[in-house]
Amino acid sequence: MKKNIPEIEELVRLISKLPGLGPKSAKRIVLKLINNREELIKPLANILAQVYKNIVRCNICGNIKSSNSSCTFQTCSYSDKNYTQICVVENIADMWVIENSGIYKGYYHILGGTLSSSDNKKTDNLLIPSLVERVKKDTIDEVILATSATIEGQTTAHYIRDSLKDTKVKISKLAQGLPIGGEIEFLDDGTLVSAFKNRGPVVSD
Amino acid sequence: MKKNIPEIEELVRLISKLPGLGPKSAKRIVLKLINNREELIKPLANILAQVYKNIVRCNICGNIKSSNSSCTFQTCSYSDKNYTQICVVENIADMWVIENSGIYKGYYHILGGTLSSSDNKKTDNLLIPSLVERVKKDTIDEVILATSATIEGQTTAHYIRDSLKDTKVKISKLAQGLPIGGEIEFLDDGTLVSAFKNRGPVVSD
Repeated sequence: MKKNIPEIEELVRLISKLPGLGPKSAKRIVLKLINNREELIKPLANILAQVYKNIVRCNICGNIKSSNSSCTFQTCSYSDKNYTQICVVENIADMWVIENSGIYKGYYHILGGTLSSSDNKKTDNLLIPSLVERVKKDTIDEVILATSATIEGQTTAHYIRDSLKDTKVKISKLAQGLPIGGEIEFLDDGTLVSAFKNRGPVVSD
Repeated sequence: MKKNIPEIEELVRLISKLPGLGPKSAKRIVLKLINNREELIKPLANILAQVYKNIVRCNICGNIKSSNSSCTFQTCSYSDKNYTQICVVENIADMWVIENSGIYKGYYHILGGTLSSSDNKKTDNLLIPSLVERVKKDTIDEVILATSATIEGQTTAHYIRDSLKDTKVKISKLAQGLPIGGEIEFLDDGTLVSAFKNRGPVVSD
């Protein structure tokens, strides 16, 4: 009875690829879209076309930027202030989380992924050479490696440390240990080992 | 430090309007999109533009269809078979659920909403006149009112029954009672009243 419309099928297929969505929720979204042609389909189609056309990755710092301007995030352009630290993260989401926490004020460098330990350490897609350039060229005192506490993230951190060994910059990485609210009973061995190794004096906050 | 890109802001805003999504999941989706320009942004922009251009509502049966063809769903065109029943539903999602259940084979009529009991019973947006036309014109024996068991749905059902009173068509509505798996203890009064009123003989399945 029901014949499928190819455009709708394709729309469901694409939307169900997005994180957190499956075929069922994609169908629900498509129904909402169909019922809101002017308010949703039209502006979404337009803004996606614009983003596709205008938003590119900065080939210095790896952040996204408008294609017709220099890097507006000042993760690599130094118009406002001269920071002395670069925080190296794997992807944009990591930077957003750190930004939101307010703990860090300085430049960012978005690698665009990690080294894969299995994949012969291919660094083709990672913005490591431009990081070395930035450190050499600018007044950077410290590079903070904020890669994940995974094998890939730590492999990447070591690789970057080696890449920067000719510069005199200070290189640090985020502390490992108990997460806030973490109960000893449920911690994995790796976290426990880190927490013991990195133990420090008891200080009042 | 972080300056916002207006296109990205707008994309997050639009996506967070979709059902089941909020600002956080919208951000996650936008990040996924940014990282998959060719695989996601481009095809999504294209298919949305196509859907906006090509997919319209059939003004006879209320279903969606390609703008350059007659109603391909055969909810109102009678190329394959001559059914004798029309199932009247509030929206496309309702039709999809009924289709998937396999319980019904016949034509559909999608109203596009319900009468609002508060809103002076405005029927402007509901495809009720074309339903009357269909019933008058074609060989329809029965109209099955599959509107929701809500005040609005039942008000709409009554309104449609009145609109069809000049035709000789049989008008039925879906049974009300215990849902499968429903425990008496947790049923609301309305459902209990319906279940008692509509009680029937005990038959072996």
